[in-house]
Amino acid sequence: MKAIIVAIGDEILIGQITNTNAAWLGQKLNDVGIEVVENLVISDKEDHILETLDYALKKADIIITTGGLGPTQDDLTVATLAKYFETELVIHEEVFERLKKMLDRRGRKLTEQSKKVALVPKDCRVIVNPKGTAPVVWFERESKMVIALPGVPYEVKHFMTDFILPDFEKRGITQSLYHKTIMTAGAGETVLANAVKEIEASLPSHIKLAYLPSFGVVRLRLSGKGDDKIQLEKEVNAFAEKIVECIPKFAYGFDEKPLALAVGEMLIERKAMVSVAESCTGGAIAKKIVENAGSSTYFEGGVVAYSYALKEKLLGVPKELLEKHGAVSEEAVEAMAKGAIERMGTDYAIATSGIAGPSGGSDDKPVGTIWMAFASKTQVFSKKYQFTPYRDVNIPLAANLALHGLRQFMKKFG
Amino acid sequence: MKAIIVAIGDEILIGQITNTNAAWLGQKLNDVGIEVVENLVISDKEDHILETLDYALKKADIIITTGGLGPTQDDLTVATLAKYFETELVIHEEVFERLKKMLDRRGRKLTEQSKKVALVPKDCRVIVNPKGTAPVVWFERESKMVIALPGVPYEVKHFMTDFILPDFEKRGITQSLYHKTIMTAGAGETVLANAVKEIEASLPSHIKLAYLPSFGVVRLRLSGKGDDKIQLEKEVNAFAEKIVECIPKFAYGFDEKPLALAVGEMLIERKAMVSVAESCTGGAIAKKIVENAGSSTYFEGGVVAYSYALKEKLLGVPKELLEKHGAVSEEAVEAMAKGAIERMGTDYAIATSGIAGPSGGSDDKPVGTIWMAFASKTQVFSKKYQFTPYRDVNIPLAANLALHGLRQFMKKFG
Repeated sequence: MKAIIVAIGDEILIGQITNTNAAWLGQKLNDVGIEVVENLVISDKEDHILETLDYALKKADIIITTGGLGPTQDDLTVATLAKYFETELVIHEEVFERLKKMLDRRGRKLTEQSKKVALVPKDCRVIVNPKGTAPVVWFERESKMVIALPGVPYEVKHFMTDFILPDFEKRGITQSLYHKTIMTAGAGETVLANAVKEIEASLPSHIKLAYLPSFGVVRLRLSGKGDDKIQLEKEVNAFAEKIVECIPKFAYGFDEKPLALAVGEMLIERKAMVSVAESCTGGAIAKKIVENAGSSTYFEGGVVAYSYALKEKLLGVPKELLEKHGAVSEEAVEAMAKGAIERMGTDYAIATSGIAGPSGGSDDKPVGTIWMAFASKTQVFSKKYQFTPYRDVNIPLAANLALHGLRQFMKKFG
Repeated sequence: MKAIIVAIGDEILIGQITNTNAAWLGQKLNDVGIEVVENLVISDKEDHILETLDYALKKADIIITTGGLGPTQDDLTVATLAKYFETELVIHEEVFERLKKMLDRRGRKLTEQSKKVALVPKDCRVIVNPKGTAPVVWFERESKMVIALPGVPYEVKHFMTDFILPDFEKRGITQSLYHKTIMTAGAGETVLANAVKEIEASLPSHIKLAYLPSFGVVRLRLSGKGDDKIQLEKEVNAFAEKIVECIPKFAYGFDEKPLALAVGEMLIERKAMVSVAESCTGGAIAKKIVENAGSSTYFEGGVVAYSYALKEKLLGVPKELLEKHGAVSEEAVEAMAKGAIERMGTDYAIATSGIAGPSGGSDDKPVGTIWMAFASKTQVFSKKYQFTPYRDVNIPLAANLALHGLRQFMKKFG
């Protein structure tokens, strides 16, 4: 099955709104084996809509439009679809009743304009919006379909996930597709590709592997197509397990799990608390930990020791040490990690200190030099990285590699 | 002038790569008055490329393709364009020489395959890539043009910014467009729209105003079109100034300036240092400050006091106070801010404490309750917000409103 996604609305054409619906829909349709052959963005003019329907129905089986369902004058999608399919507009009783109730609750009156959203074409399917606003209208003609969705992204997601995709599946329109993503940290694409090359070479043609890198985290995404869903899941999962076995140091979980959550799970297992002592990462590690609900179970807190003074005052790093070795040094970062353990009373600590850029580098410590240390109550381990000249790369990269480093440290030292 | 952007490559169709080029190109072209009437993504098959060239040249004056210029077998763009425009491929001497030099430097040999990138169609413009890789080829036929760009985003930006857009301007293809963005924080779209409604109503038809909101920050973007560039800039800037005058509390700068940088500039002016004491925001405020190069001039550092214990140990918040009022209270957050001033020795401090969600709420302190406080050495001021049930909204929203709050505090208390 081939699909074309058509976004209707001047506000997208002039760049006032980014067309995120197209990307989301494209991915979801691709995920179930419906090939998106084209994305279009068009203006809300009747002519342009009619002409595009003609064009798109020639090239694809499923046309999904987004936008233009509201009550204002520039919302033309439903009326234009009725015209295209040569049918008339009628009041939809259920939509109308829900609309009245919704307006009542808000203490607003029903006007001719607001009534417009209850008008639907006579010969089509209608999916009622439980919130009382514009419904989805769905034409099917000679094995082709046109589905008109609203423009609001969460409504698009709701209608697709709860109604349209399950309907497609029931009717056998979608193919069985199954994805499994192996989350890795600490290794680049080349290292990973080399480590899994034998498995990758042994993949059958209906299972593909993609590498999706982002700041020290690489997602390895297995995508399988098949007729037998249960068999397919088993097969893809088996390959995922094999891949994990090849990269035990780097694989930390599956399916979009945040790296900081994997760290959190290890801490929960150990009934341990962690703290952070961040200099160059400036709170980026703490932020990543706190983004996960429930992080207070294992995260005590931390210090953003951006100045020499705070490294001294809050972490007890001796002034002489900082003056002798500088803040970006093995000695300083280890003292910061040990200070975090002592001052914050945690079982583990992460410390970072580096030159994030763009300035502040020297010959022996160029921009991108980042030290990080990991400590427990009895051990400390540090590591130096040489990253890039770019602040907006160095900070997120250091934050992820610090989280990865703590996982390695816990595995090694218990 | 109308343009169509065509991305060529299976990797985009199957969603392995997001087509960021289309969005960037769309915006840049729109910015200079070239109307992008459609975006297409197509596969790298000769037929599909030929057919799309036919289609696109009927609908638009300028076709920009991205991708398919490399040396591998699936890079078909240049050869297909030569076929479409009925010309032959020849070796481009300068490209060839640069290619040889580049390979020499890397100690690699010239192969038949690598030679392919020096092959260009006979009758077209060629823009040499100074890095020695595939050049841009540019056909012009009967007032229509097809420009083939590489797929790598930074190369697309380089060729457009340094060669193609200046060329368009010189030939008068582009219209004078001028944008001025007023950055605001602390007010929603409705409040802002109401405050500037008279100015908005007085805008001439060639100047538009757009509202672009994101987590408590709203960008007000003025876009003007005109023939006289200098006159247009003057006119748009005058409206921008008028808008700023209507919203003195909320406007903090122009043209994508980060809110944390506006805070930094106020601190630099006052020769003052700031620290943070973050509970629910968990490092998000510190991270926003540190993202700006040079932030060590005004940022001392901070404490992520996620636990009761750290609020006590690192910020000196009395245990009894926390037990009596809870951590999410006016008393606690003010004590945190005062503690930050004392313990970190800064001139100003920001403190946050709240229930970010999804759990942890109660009847009198539901999820989304966030207290924030601002302190100087002599003053403290606190404020309560009720945000949303969503952690991924509450944290960035609280971080931005805390930065906005510090600006108000500094303005009021000096």
